[in-house]
Amino acid sequence: MDKESDSNLWFEEPYTEGLRFHYRVKKYVVARQTRFQYAEIIDLFAFGRTLFLDGKLQSAEIDEHIYHEMLVHPVMLMHPSPRNVLIMGGGEGATLREVLKYPVEKVYMVDIDEELVNMCKKYLPKWHAGSFDDKRSIILFQDARKFVEEYKGEPFDVVISDLTEPVEEGPAIYLFTREFYSTLKSKMSEDGVFVAQAGSAEYLYTEFISALSATLKDVFPQVYGYHDYVFSFQLNWAFLIASLKYTLPERRADMERRFDEIRDKVKYFTPEYFFAKTILPPYMKKSMTEGRVITDKEPYVWKA
Amino acid sequence: MDKESDSNLWFEEPYTEGLRFHYRVKKYVVARQTRFQYAEIIDLFAFGRTLFLDGKLQSAEIDEHIYHEMLVHPVMLMHPSPRNVLIMGGGEGATLREVLKYPVEKVYMVDIDEELVNMCKKYLPKWHAGSFDDKRSIILFQDARKFVEEYKGEPFDVVISDLTEPVEEGPAIYLFTREFYSTLKSKMSEDGVFVAQAGSAEYLYTEFISALSATLKDVFPQVYGYHDYVFSFQLNWAFLIASLKYTLPERRADMERRFDEIRDKVKYFTPEYFFAKTILPPYMKKSMTEGRVITDKEPYVWKA
Amino acid sequence: MDKESDSNLWFEEPYTEGLRFHYRVKKYVVARQTRFQYAEIIDLFAFGRTLFLDGKLQSAEIDEHIYHEMLVHPVMLMHPSPRNVLIMGGGEGATLREVLKYPVEKVYMVDIDEELVNMCKKYLPKWHAGSFDDKRSIILFQDARKFVEEYKGEPFDVVISDLTEPVEEGPAIYLFTREFYSTLKSKMSEDGVFVAQAGSAEYLYTEFISALSATLKDVFPQVYGYHDYVFSFQLNWAFLIASLKYTLPERRADMERRFDEIRDKVKYFTPEYFFAKTILPPYMKKSMTEGRVITDKEPYVWKA
Amino acid sequence: MDKESDSNLWFEEPYTEGLRFHYRVKKYVVARQTRFQYAEIIDLFAFGRTLFLDGKLQSAEIDEHIYHEMLVHPVMLMHPSPRNVLIMGGGEGATLREVLKYPVEKVYMVDIDEELVNMCKKYLPKWHAGSFDDKRSIILFQDARKFVEEYKGEPFDVVISDLTEPVEEGPAIYLFTREFYSTLKSKMSEDGVFVAQAGSAEYLYTEFISALSATLKDVFPQVYGYHDYVFSFQLNWAFLIASLKYTLPERRADMERRFDEIRDKVKYFTPEYFFAKTILPPYMKKSMTEGRVITDKEPYVWKA
Repeated sequence: MDKESDSNLWFEEPYTEGLRFHYRVKKYVVARQTRFQYAEIIDLFAFGRTLFLDGKLQSAEIDEHIYHEMLVHPVMLMHPSPRNVLIMGGGEGATLREVLKYPVEKVYMVDIDEELVNMCKKYLPKWHAGSFDDKRSIILFQDARKFVEEYKGEPFDVVISDLTEPVEEGPAIYLFTREFYSTLKSKMSEDGVFVAQAGSAEYLYTEFISALSATLKDVFPQVYGYHDYVFSFQLNWAFLIASLKYTLPERRADMERRFDEIRDKVKYFTPEYFFAKTILPPYMKKSMTEGRVITDKEPYVWKA
Repeated sequence: MDKESDSNLWFEEPYTEGLRFHYRVKKYVVARQTRFQYAEIIDLFAFGRTLFLDGKLQSAEIDEHIYHEMLVHPVMLMHPSPRNVLIMGGGEGATLREVLKYPVEKVYMVDIDEELVNMCKKYLPKWHAGSFDDKRSIILFQDARKFVEEYKGEPFDVVISDLTEPVEEGPAIYLFTREFYSTLKSKMSEDGVFVAQAGSAEYLYTEFISALSATLKDVFPQVYGYHDYVFSFQLNWAFLIASLKYTLPERRADMERRFDEIRDKVKYFTPEYFFAKTILPPYMKKSMTEGRVITDKEPYVWKA
Repeated sequence: MDKESDSNLWFEEPYTEGLRFHYRVKKYVVARQTRFQYAEIIDLFAFGRTLFLDGKLQSAEIDEHIYHEMLVHPVMLMHPSPRNVLIMGGGEGATLREVLKYPVEKVYMVDIDEELVNMCKKYLPKWHAGSFDDKRSIILFQDARKFVEEYKGEPFDVVISDLTEPVEEGPAIYLFTREFYSTLKSKMSEDGVFVAQAGSAEYLYTEFISALSATLKDVFPQVYGYHDYVFSFQLNWAFLIASLKYTLPERRADMERRFDEIRDKVKYFTPEYFFAKTILPPYMKKSMTEGRVITDKEPYVWKA
Repeated sequence: MDKESDSNLWFEEPYTEGLRFHYRVKKYVVARQTRFQYAEIIDLFAFGRTLFLDGKLQSAEIDEHIYHEMLVHPVMLMHPSPRNVLIMGGGEGATLREVLKYPVEKVYMVDIDEELVNMCKKYLPKWHAGSFDDKRSIILFQDARKFVEEYKGEPFDVVISDLTEPVEEGPAIYLFTREFYSTLKSKMSEDGVFVAQAGSAEYLYTEFISALSATLKDVFPQVYGYHDYVFSFQLNWAFLIASLKYTLPERRADMERRFDEIRDKVKYFTPEYFFAKTILPPYMKKSMTEGRVITDKEPYVWKA
């Protein structure tokens, strides 16, 4: 019996009522009930070190780079010269790490959960890779909506929404509404670009993408979807870009040129691959045309 | 408590030593130990009716169309006028169903497991949709290698390898070798096209794609990979095309034109989406350049 | 791999929030939502054919004889010549089977769930062993309380309470109260004997035994507890005897003598073993002295 | 959702191929691969702090006292004045704790696994309760067989075999043979008493008790079995006493008298309850008459 089969400790993630994932545990590293969520960091045989929030897998050593590169590089390249960047959420520090690969001046990372960020600092060094200590980083622990509403600094060239889904009574519920996006737009530069992780792109679960793309289209002139499969998520994942000035096609050549400058620093992303991922599966394409606009009055509440 | 949570019957699929999928069972329909494999048909809450072979999920009601459309339509469109088609494996009858959407003259389906095909006929009507009874279908229960070696009929325009992985002592082990593909080539028309389902396209499991693409490249002038995510497989899935005469780019315009004729009969596939899926993730692209050729002397043996 | 490990179908029984039993399934025989409960009959590798009600194991082929012999023989021997017997519950027919080993005249079996009894008749032949067709058996499908209240026939010599636990809104909730036992007493012969299966005798779960013994002591002059371990229950099990006239010690010699007449018909029970089982573990002894009386006004509600 | 349901960390114990126990984990305390076994100490919601060896539950906070009191007190009372005691195994220190409740002069505890004992010292303080530091305790880390063979001290009045089952290639395999028991007898006083934990007393698993009782009967004039149910073992458990001079019945009155002196120090055991537990279930009684003698040449090898 090899080492792997020796362990009979399992972490169980109920995906739906009818489907559960069971991960064999190598080491149960740490757990903490923060003010906002139950955070666990576990070494899994299947995925390496892995972060779970409220029992749901957030990111795993084995392929966090796929998620984070696919989230960050499209918008950082789409904007021709991003200097001032805002990350909402992004507790692990890996989104920040990717942003700092560009010659930006300032990156605000606004995450409501200080305890979580401290856990990540200590236990997920591969994720942040020292980015919290970069002198361009400004780390703030507060509600991102409040931060944006009160922000009076230079306009943001790029805004990245790396938030957990808007679950009932969760901290992210008013961070996906038309009202919030309107305010956000007013704090962006005129050629600003926005991206959001938009949850599962799965066949059966397109409701959130539908609503989120309808909402973004209500506020921004250009909205694009793309998707990629992240093995440890066991799911096709969706992302939405909203742009104030540029279209994606007109930016392609320049994106490829600028990518050459950071090519050696990324493991997975390429512009060619990204553009292929903007060709959506038919059901996802359709879902992006039929949602309802999310508002403060009728926020979107994530159904587990 | 809703209906779904009432049931405490679960089917467990060990994916690796460190990862297990647990599916809640709605109805355990039928199981049979055939001469070649242990076949189970189960109604799952998560995926609807589902076929398992030797405990591994093969195809599920919820998204078998994604797998079967992505397997069949690229090659049926790439060949300009397929009349004589060979399917190796394909027990459920869904590959056959997709092929018959075209005005072919004859489709040979050669599957070694008659008992399995009979189970599928009876319990998977949505899969075959009557295709076994189409007068163009010729269903043969025998070893595909023997069939190909002894075949003296008209050359095949399209050949589809819809086989299970070459597990140790399994029936498919000599259906992925250079020697077999050489024989197969000699039974194909000069503009013939071949496609194989090539197993998981996952980050960690690219060894089979590597070896299979090296082997096909050793026999056929043109080899292409593509991939797509199938939710019920919980995996990105790989496919390999081998072509004797045509390149994919030169065929694109005609493929789009011919697709218009069957567009109403498919649910998921489009040429545009397919071409996007030929842009591979970087690791998969790399894996297609570094494998060893599979031979009768050194066959590829699938590691679970 | 042997036959047993081939199957990956499991039935899961949550025993508490912190403990679950997983049984590998050989064959999922039948399931039915009756008017009163969700009944499943499953062939398990560990226990053979097994009946589950609302997901909880009720009796298993491997050791149902232990439970049923230990329930029935003590009271049937304690009463010197039982002719008229009442069974409340007992849907599988195995309690009836044990009673009919004695030369009784009539056995009333009153079970509220006709659909369940019909399932048991068809799928659990080893349990009833034809006892439903014995001409001494009178099978009635109705509420046992109503039956007892309206009963005007000959007094009962022996009454056996083979009911499921009094779960919230379940049919057994008013079958464990002082008021009911008082009525029952009035329908028993002056030397009548009563026995009830009293649930788990476990260290942590003695509350029901406490309350039930207090209630019986409030109505009957003699009350005795005994217990035995039933492997498939994964639990020490408790039984309570209430007697109108006889004490257990005074009956011992006659019980042993009468047992000789049926010795060949039982597999497990002996009077010597039974008397040893009336010596209770200290915590159970204590629990039988400290409960509160269950009344119609304050019925006992079983906590899962 | 209460605290208990928050945790999705489970420890899985395969009991047989067809039956698994799943314990929800409160805290995974410590694990160590010692020279002899894989030892894990885990806080379970169901049983409190629990020790597992090679994945099998050994003793749990909730009811270790049941096992240890039932193991130790019968022999310590059966011998009229034990002064010199030997414990073989007993790593947790709880057997030692029970022995030290009597006015003995010396207790040798011989356990082969020093690393395990050190873990227990540190993490199972309720088990040993300081007994390792009692000046009457002599703790030796070596093979018990070698110790006994070379022992030249005063004869042992009481010997307690608190060993794990003789699994293949395990350290206990030659500690259950006729040859070893003959040597052991020669190191005991003429009125010496021996007890062994004898594994599961379950219906289906009586082979070890059979063989062990046959072996003891071959060496000692008096052999007795008794059993008790230990909740956290999910099993009826068997014990065997072998006595050189006394019979159990002749000792009963004195045992009850001497028990009065330590009554306040025990939680569960009473002589009355113990004597009831020497009345065996019929199958166990039978199994004690039909085993084969275990020898060095043909040792007993435990089948999981």
